[in-house]
Amino acid sequence: MSQIDSNWSFVDHSKETPEGFLFSGISAGLKASNKKDLALVLAPEGSIFSGMFTQSIVRASCVDICEERLKRASGFVRAILINSGQANACTGNLGIQHFQIATGKIAELLGIKEEEVLMCSTGVIGVPIKINDLIKNLPNLVSDLKSNNFQNAAEAILTTDLTLKTVLIETIIQGRKIKIAGFAKGSGMIYPNMATMLAFLTCDAGIQKEEWDKMISIAVKKSFNAISVDGETSTNDSFIGINSGEKIDKRFFPIIQKGIDIVCQNLAKNIARDGEGANCLLEVLVQGAKNTEDAIMVAKFICNSALVKTAIHGCDPNWGRIISAAGNSGVEFNLNDVDLYIGNDQILEKGKLKQYDSIKVTEYIRSKMNGKYLVEDIVQIMINLNSGESKGTAWGCDLSKKYVEINSEYTT
Amino acid sequence: MSQIDSNWSFVDHSKETPEGFLFSGISAGLKASNKKDLALVLAPEGSIFSGMFTQSIVRASCVDICEERLKRASGFVRAILINSGQANACTGNLGIQHFQIATGKIAELLGIKEEEVLMCSTGVIGVPIKINDLIKNLPNLVSDLKSNNFQNAAEAILTTDLTLKTVLIETIIQGRKIKIAGFAKGSGMIYPNMATMLAFLTCDAGIQKEEWDKMISIAVKKSFNAISVDGETSTNDSFIGINSGEKIDKRFFPIIQKGIDIVCQNLAKNIARDGEGANCLLEVLVQGAKNTEDAIMVAKFICNSALVKTAIHGCDPNWGRIISAAGNSGVEFNLNDVDLYIGNDQILEKGKLKQYDSIKVTEYIRSKMNGKYLVEDIVQIMINLNSGESKGTAWGCDLSKKYVEINSEYTT
Repeated sequence: MSQIDSNWSFVDHSKETPEGFLFSGISAGLKASNKKDLALVLAPEGSIFSGMFTQSIVRASCVDICEERLKRASGFVRAILINSGQANACTGNLGIQHFQIATGKIAELLGIKEEEVLMCSTGVIGVPIKINDLIKNLPNLVSDLKSNNFQNAAEAILTTDLTLKTVLIETIIQGRKIKIAGFAKGSGMIYPNMATMLAFLTCDAGIQKEEWDKMISIAVKKSFNAISVDGETSTNDSFIGINSGEKIDKRFFPIIQKGIDIVCQNLAKNIARDGEGANCLLEVLVQGAKNTEDAIMVAKFICNSALVKTAIHGCDPNWGRIISAAGNSGVEFNLNDVDLYIGNDQILEKGKLKQYDSIKVTEYIRSKMNGKYLVEDIVQIMINLNSGESKGTAWGCDLSKKYVEINSEYTT
Repeated sequence: MSQIDSNWSFVDHSKETPEGFLFSGISAGLKASNKKDLALVLAPEGSIFSGMFTQSIVRASCVDICEERLKRASGFVRAILINSGQANACTGNLGIQHFQIATGKIAELLGIKEEEVLMCSTGVIGVPIKINDLIKNLPNLVSDLKSNNFQNAAEAILTTDLTLKTVLIETIIQGRKIKIAGFAKGSGMIYPNMATMLAFLTCDAGIQKEEWDKMISIAVKKSFNAISVDGETSTNDSFIGINSGEKIDKRFFPIIQKGIDIVCQNLAKNIARDGEGANCLLEVLVQGAKNTEDAIMVAKFICNSALVKTAIHGCDPNWGRIISAAGNSGVEFNLNDVDLYIGNDQILEKGKLKQYDSIKVTEYIRSKMNGKYLVEDIVQIMINLNSGESKGTAWGCDLSKKYVEINSEYTT
């Protein structure tokens, strides 16, 4: 357990999940690798689900049906079935049928209504789901539901991810332990808004629907919508936040919001850090913007620039590319006002080049590329536009030959 | 000479340049390689210049001054000095001084006013121009001005380009020969609107200012603003179209527009084909869109998708990525209406997967990657959205490990 702020601490293991939630994750033979590929989350009765989905016009049918079911039930559903291996996108009517068959069967096994089950998919686009294998394994999946099977569920949703992405935190409010646990998958096709990412958050603070929707929306803007691996938005991107439990007093809402932000930002950073072929996490903080939207937009453009990403890959403090990317964001600023730092070294002061030690800055970048896939390996860039009081952060990663290899040599 | 349409023919050599224009291109020692790096175009008296410049907020001062001089003179300027090696961007007051010194000296040598000289730069951002070397070589540059030095000028503006980019065409209208000649440089950082590209077009059709501005704007939209190498817009992107000569009757304007379109599209395709690390030209035609803007937007998103570009590089007919990229364009369409072709093979019909021979399609893509850097090596993708009557085309290239290598191992 390690302290994050005056309220929240990370929980080191994945057994202390929020009260009443059950998880399961097994191998159903959907992936050729025989790794885990089917997960289930069952929430306590009365839980509130809030979902945010891909903004692409081309969406997997599962996304459309999830959104529809959530809307019709005003967020009061119960379970999420998640499969990896096939994305069930661009699969026409067959995709819809498979969704209905799978969620119908889960409902039957759990003794709930089909409309109370959501289903999220990730994997290859355009290939029908291996529905027979999936259906055959649903009884095992259900019988394996446990409060401490969180990690199995988190493993089962991964595709080309190299690392498990889980974040568990807790706090004590008026003698009551509050827990938030999130898990995610990412890898390629990661770009705001949302990404080829699935992420799920469970929380036992007991927040009513309207407030919960608002909290989730705030957290997503500053986390999953502020990361980029390759500028691609997927057909299946989904984030679902669930909360349950006795209603907490609203004066503690800011603490809960902080907790949700922490979990979402940590998952988002883990996704960017584990971008396909990535060797480091790139964090761009923009200060002195006219508003938060402008700040995040400039930060996103820098994180998403192929030329910045390749420069970082080459450990080259190529400030011209950073400034050039900022200039393409559409946000108005004056170059003669701009301060730029890479790590602790100031490169530009009011738009003018400082005498900086480029070898030292190169070594700073290189030191973050240690091959350990730690989210702590952050190359930090800070820009102050000096044209306002707002700030915002975005995250990305370097662009390597490995990214090209992964995406040109395999169908994903 | 080879026929393009009923009016225009390509001129095979670079000696038949438009009437009255003079060109020069020499080495002034600005590039470490000692290759040609300084060019000059002198237009006949009374010529009309129309310029379009980068839309980035961070612009080289040369771009600002060019735009200002063009505006003040209502397009009636005379000469363009172009250097490669240093972009003269993010160089503060020094950059402005260097522009003024260089154009002042050219004006003196040519006996015209400083305000009648424009200057375009390309090369490394943030490094001051080697002004002493440049100034020392201006007399040679001016004394070398000839109507048949077009190719030297075209060579002198290249940076990491692998191929020369020139297009010369001619037609006969009422017994009068009309010629259009364009040259360009591209390579990385190529994205609409404009690119790290410089392009110059000369024409002797004699069109008045207002009409000429309109013609240039129309041509740019369908050419330089419809290409992408890496989604990056540069600090220096500039296109300048010059026309001169006896005024042609306006009933021939459509023929002239066609000619300008041909030259601009050919230069643009050459830029995309010669994108850093590229092995083929990618051409995406979108049909059945509600309007031309939508069609070009969808085509651009496909050309600009890292996942489509890596798939093409891997000769993988990954239609899921193509459709997914189209879905991210923000243009409304229904997947169930979409037809998709790669080359001559239909992959989707009304959103449904056809039985197609994926090995044949892979071979089609592979056949375009012959290492000859020909603009004829085109991988063609066609999408019909079947939701309107409009169409549009965009061009790009594949994304290779070589792109990453070029941009991570060298400061450019």
